[in-house]
Amino acid sequence: MLEQTLSNPAPESSRDLIFAINPVSGETIEPGYPESTSAEVDHAVRLATDAYENGALPAPQRAEMLRQMATAIESLGDEVIHVARSETGLPEGRLVGERQRTVNQLRMFAKVVDEGAWLDARIETALPDRVPIPRPDLRSMLVPIGPVAVFGASNFPFAFSTAGGDTASALASGCPVVYKAHPAHPGTNECVSQAIRQAISQSGGHPGTFTHLHGRHLVGEQLVQHPLIHSVAFTGSLRGGRALSQLANLRAIPIPVFAEMGSINPVFLLPHALEKRSDALATEFAVALSMGVGQFCTNPGLVVGIAGPRLDGWKESVSQAVSKVLPQAMLTPEIAKAYQSAGECLRLTTTTVFAASVQHCLATPGVFSVKASEFISNPMLQEEVFGPTCLVVECRDQAELVAVANALQGQLTATLHAETADLELESILSPILVRRVGRLIRNGFPTGVEVGEAMQHGGPYPASTDARFTSVGTRAILRFARPVCFQGVSASLLPQELQDENPLGIVRRVNGSATDQPI
Amino acid sequence: MLEQTLSNPAPESSRDLIFAINPVSGETIEPGYPESTSAEVDHAVRLATDAYENGALPAPQRAEMLRQMATAIESLGDEVIHVARSETGLPEGRLVGERQRTVNQLRMFAKVVDEGAWLDARIETALPDRVPIPRPDLRSMLVPIGPVAVFGASNFPFAFSTAGGDTASALASGCPVVYKAHPAHPGTNECVSQAIRQAISQSGGHPGTFTHLHGRHLVGEQLVQHPLIHSVAFTGSLRGGRALSQLANLRAIPIPVFAEMGSINPVFLLPHALEKRSDALATEFAVALSMGVGQFCTNPGLVVGIAGPRLDGWKESVSQAVSKVLPQAMLTPEIAKAYQSAGECLRLTTTTVFAASVQHCLATPGVFSVKASEFISNPMLQEEVFGPTCLVVECRDQAELVAVANALQGQLTATLHAETADLELESILSPILVRRVGRLIRNGFPTGVEVGEAMQHGGPYPASTDARFTSVGTRAILRFARPVCFQGVSASLLPQELQDENPLGIVRRVNGSATDQPI
Repeated sequence: MLEQTLSNPAPESSRDLIFAINPVSGETIEPGYPESTSAEVDHAVRLATDAYENGALPAPQRAEMLRQMATAIESLGDEVIHVARSETGLPEGRLVGERQRTVNQLRMFAKVVDEGAWLDARIETALPDRVPIPRPDLRSMLVPIGPVAVFGASNFPFAFSTAGGDTASALASGCPVVYKAHPAHPGTNECVSQAIRQAISQSGGHPGTFTHLHGRHLVGEQLVQHPLIHSVAFTGSLRGGRALSQLANLRAIPIPVFAEMGSINPVFLLPHALEKRSDALATEFAVALSMGVGQFCTNPGLVVGIAGPRLDGWKESVSQAVSKVLPQAMLTPEIAKAYQSAGECLRLTTTTVFAASVQHCLATPGVFSVKASEFISNPMLQEEVFGPTCLVVECRDQAELVAVANALQGQLTATLHAETADLELESILSPILVRRVGRLIRNGFPTGVEVGEAMQHGGPYPASTDARFTSVGTRAILRFARPVCFQGVSASLLPQELQDENPLGIVRRVNGSATDQPI
Repeated sequence: MLEQTLSNPAPESSRDLIFAINPVSGETIEPGYPESTSAEVDHAVRLATDAYENGALPAPQRAEMLRQMATAIESLGDEVIHVARSETGLPEGRLVGERQRTVNQLRMFAKVVDEGAWLDARIETALPDRVPIPRPDLRSMLVPIGPVAVFGASNFPFAFSTAGGDTASALASGCPVVYKAHPAHPGTNECVSQAIRQAISQSGGHPGTFTHLHGRHLVGEQLVQHPLIHSVAFTGSLRGGRALSQLANLRAIPIPVFAEMGSINPVFLLPHALEKRSDALATEFAVALSMGVGQFCTNPGLVVGIAGPRLDGWKESVSQAVSKVLPQAMLTPEIAKAYQSAGECLRLTTTTVFAASVQHCLATPGVFSVKASEFISNPMLQEEVFGPTCLVVECRDQAELVAVANALQGQLTATLHAETADLELESILSPILVRRVGRLIRNGFPTGVEVGEAMQHGGPYPASTDARFTSVGTRAILRFARPVCFQGVSASLLPQELQDENPLGIVRRVNGSATDQPI
C-alpha cells in the first residue's frame, strides 16, 4: 500500500520560477521562487511520513511547538508585512490584524491540545463477571490520520496560508503538514515558513513536521495523488475544490478532501427590519460588501427582499454608500479579470443598480437586481462572484421569499435581518435556512468570522466538500483524526491519554461519566 | 437543488419478485416480495424528506420512539426467529442473541439521545465590550443531515439490517431512514419493518421516519443517486462499497457513504505467547474462525507468526480443532459458491494446511499457509475471503514479521498475542498496527464486537470508506450529523438544546467549560 509509485509525476521540465505581481503597481516582484519538482514533492511527503511514524511529539511538547510558532511569526516584525503588502495589495492594518489572528489561532490550538478534551477519550473497564459474556477492557481516543497536504489560499496570506487555520489544526492533531504555497504570495509564504521551521527546530520537532513547496496545478495534483498523503485541506474555488476532491476519490486508497469553496451568503431583509432601519442596513451592508474588496468566503453576495418602495429605497442608499468606496486593488490580475467578467455576465442577465468598475487590479463594488422568479429558474445566478458584488433578489411577496430560500444551494452562511414583528416569517425561514447553511446569523453580517469553539465555517455542498467539519475554530482539529480502540492493551503500550493514572489530567468518559480523575 | 430529476431511473420492467432461499434445504421460500419500482423509491425518499423537514420529534420523544421500537421487536416473539432461521440458516441461539443485541442497541441510542452530550453543544456568549471588536453570541450543535439510505447486510439479519445499528443511529440523530432490505432475508426484514412502523405510529412519529424497500442493485443505485438522499450506510463487500461510494461522489451534490467493507483482521502470534500457550491459542482461534461459519467482518482471516516447530505445532492443533467442526450452512448459495472459489484460488497460490469442504451451502473451515515474502509481494493474498478460512503467514524472523505488519492494508482490527517477554517486539508492532486499524486487540480475538461507547468498528481504507467514523457503538450517531452555528439568534428560534435555560439539562460547553447548568 505504501510503496505505490505515483501515477502522474510532474515532468521535471515543468520546473519554473514563480513570481508575485504587485497588484497596485503591476510590477513583477523579485526574486522568483522555483516551482518544486516532482522529486521535491516526493521528498517532502516522505519526510512528513517519517515525522508521522517516528517523530511524534507528546501533547505538551506539541502545544509548546505551536506557541513557539506564534512567537516566531510575531518576531518577523514589519518585514513580512511589507512583503505581504507588495504581494497582495492588502492594506497594512488588515495584514497586521490578520497576522494577529494567525498567531492567536496557533495559541488557541495549543490550548486545545493541552486541554485534551478534543481527543474524545473513552474508557470502559473490563467486566469479567458480566453474563452472558465478559466485557473486555476497551479504551478509545482520536489519533492523527497521517500527513496532510494543505493548499494556501489567495485571500488570506496569513490566516489561510502557511501557518493558517488548516496548518495549525493539522499540526495540533499530530499530523505533519506538506504545504503548497499559493503562487500569488510566495515571498510571504517563504518568510512564514522559515519562522515555522525555526520554531519546530527549537521545540525538538521532526523536520518533516512541516515542509513547504512552491507550485501550481501540477504540484497540487501530485500531492493529492501521493499515496502517503492522508488528507487534503483547501480553500478556494468550487472548480478547484471539486477537481481535487474527485482526484482524491479516484485514488486506489481514497482520502478525505476538506475544500471550503465559497458561497454567496444570502442576506434576507424582512419587511419590518427594512421598514425600521433601512438606512443603517444600507450603510452596514455596504461596509460588509466592500470590506477587503469583497474577497472573503463570507462576502454577502445575495440579498433577498420583498419588492417595493422600501427595497428600492434601500438599494438607492446602498448605491450611494458604495459610490463613495474608492477603487481598491484586488489580490491578483486574474482575480480582477474574473471579477470584471462576472460583472459583465450579470449586466447581461440582470438589472444593474450600481455598475462596478475594474481597471487593472483596481475594483469598486457592483450592485445588481433580479426578479425572484428569474433567480429561482436560473442556477447560474447562484454562482459565487469573487469580489464586492451583490445581487438583490426581489420577491413579489412573502411566499416568494420563502420559495427563494427553498431554492438556495448549500451555503457557508445565511443572514436574517428581522424585528420582533417579523417573527412569523422568520420562524418559517429559519429551519429552511438551517438545512442549507453552516451558520445562521441574525441582525449581523457574515463577514468577520469569529475564531472560537462555537464557530462553524463550512456548509452543505457546494459551500464545502464535507459539511460535517469546519475550517475555522477549535472544531477544525477534528478533520485530521480518527478514533482507535485499544482492547485489553497493557498500560505500557497505551497512549498516555488512556492510561489509568491519566498523567495528562485530561477529561475522559470513564464507564459513561466525564471525569479528569485517574481510574 | 432539491428538484433535480434522477439521472438513471430504474426501468419499471425490472420489477421482479424477490424470494429467499433456505440455505439448509435449498428450497425457495414463499411468498416473494415485489422489488420496489423507481416510483416507489422516489415516493419513499420524498416521504422521508417530508419527515425530515416537517416531522422532526423533539429529543425526548425521539428517544421514546427508539424504546418503543425495541419493545415492538421483542414482541415479535419466536415467529420472526423462525422466519430468519429459514432464510439465513443461522442457528436459533445466534438469532435470539442477535435480536437481543439489536434491541439493546436501540435502547442504547435512546440513552444517547436523552443524555444529549453527543450534540457537542457549545455556547460562547456575547462580549459587547471586547476590543478591537465585540464578540457576537455564538451557539452551535450538531443537527441531522437529512434522509439516510441504509443498506441491509446479509450476515446480520437483525443487528445490521432493518432495525440494526445503522438505522438506530440514523434515527437517533434525527435523520429519517430509507431502508433497502438485503434480498437474502426479505421476510425477516418485512417482520421487523412492521414492528418499526407500528412503534413510529404509536410514538407520534411521521410515517416517513422509516420506509422499507425491497430490491437489488437498481434500487440501491437509484437510492444513492436520489438528490434528496443525504448519506448512505452500507455493510458488505469492498466491490459493493467502492461502487456506491464512487456513485455518490459523481452526484451533482456528492454525499458521504459509510461503507464498512470487511477486513482480514490479522492476528500476530508473538514467540513467547506461542511458546507458552500454543494449544489454548489453537483451540480459541479455531472457535473464533469457525463461529458463524466465518461470516463476520471481524473474522480472523490472517495469522502471522515466525516459522518453526512451534508454529507448525500450532497449525497442527488448529487443523485438529477445525477438523471437528461440523459442516454448517452459509447464508446464501452465492456466498457458499464464492467461498468455494476463494478456497480454490488459495489452494493454487498457497500451501493447504487443512482443506475446507463446500457442498451446496454447507461449509467447513480451511487453513492455508504462505511464506511472508510471497505474502508481501502479492496484494491479492490480502483480499478478504468471506467464510471460515485463514491464511497463516510464516516469517523467517522478527524483522520479517515487522515487514508483514508494514505491508498490511487498512483493517478493522489487528490482534497481538503476546507475553511480557514479547514486550520489545510488541512495542515495535503496536504503533505500526495502530496506523492501519480501527481496533487493536491484545490477547483476545476480534470477533464479538462490544456495542458500547468506546468501540471503534471502522478502519482505514479498504476496511471502511471513512475511518473517522464507526458503524458500531454510540459514536456511530456522529455519521449523520453536522454542526450548525447560530449567531445572535433569538431564544425562541434556537433549538432547545442551545437555549439559556437548558430545558433538557444536557451537558454543554459554555464559554469554554462543560456544564449542565442554565446560563
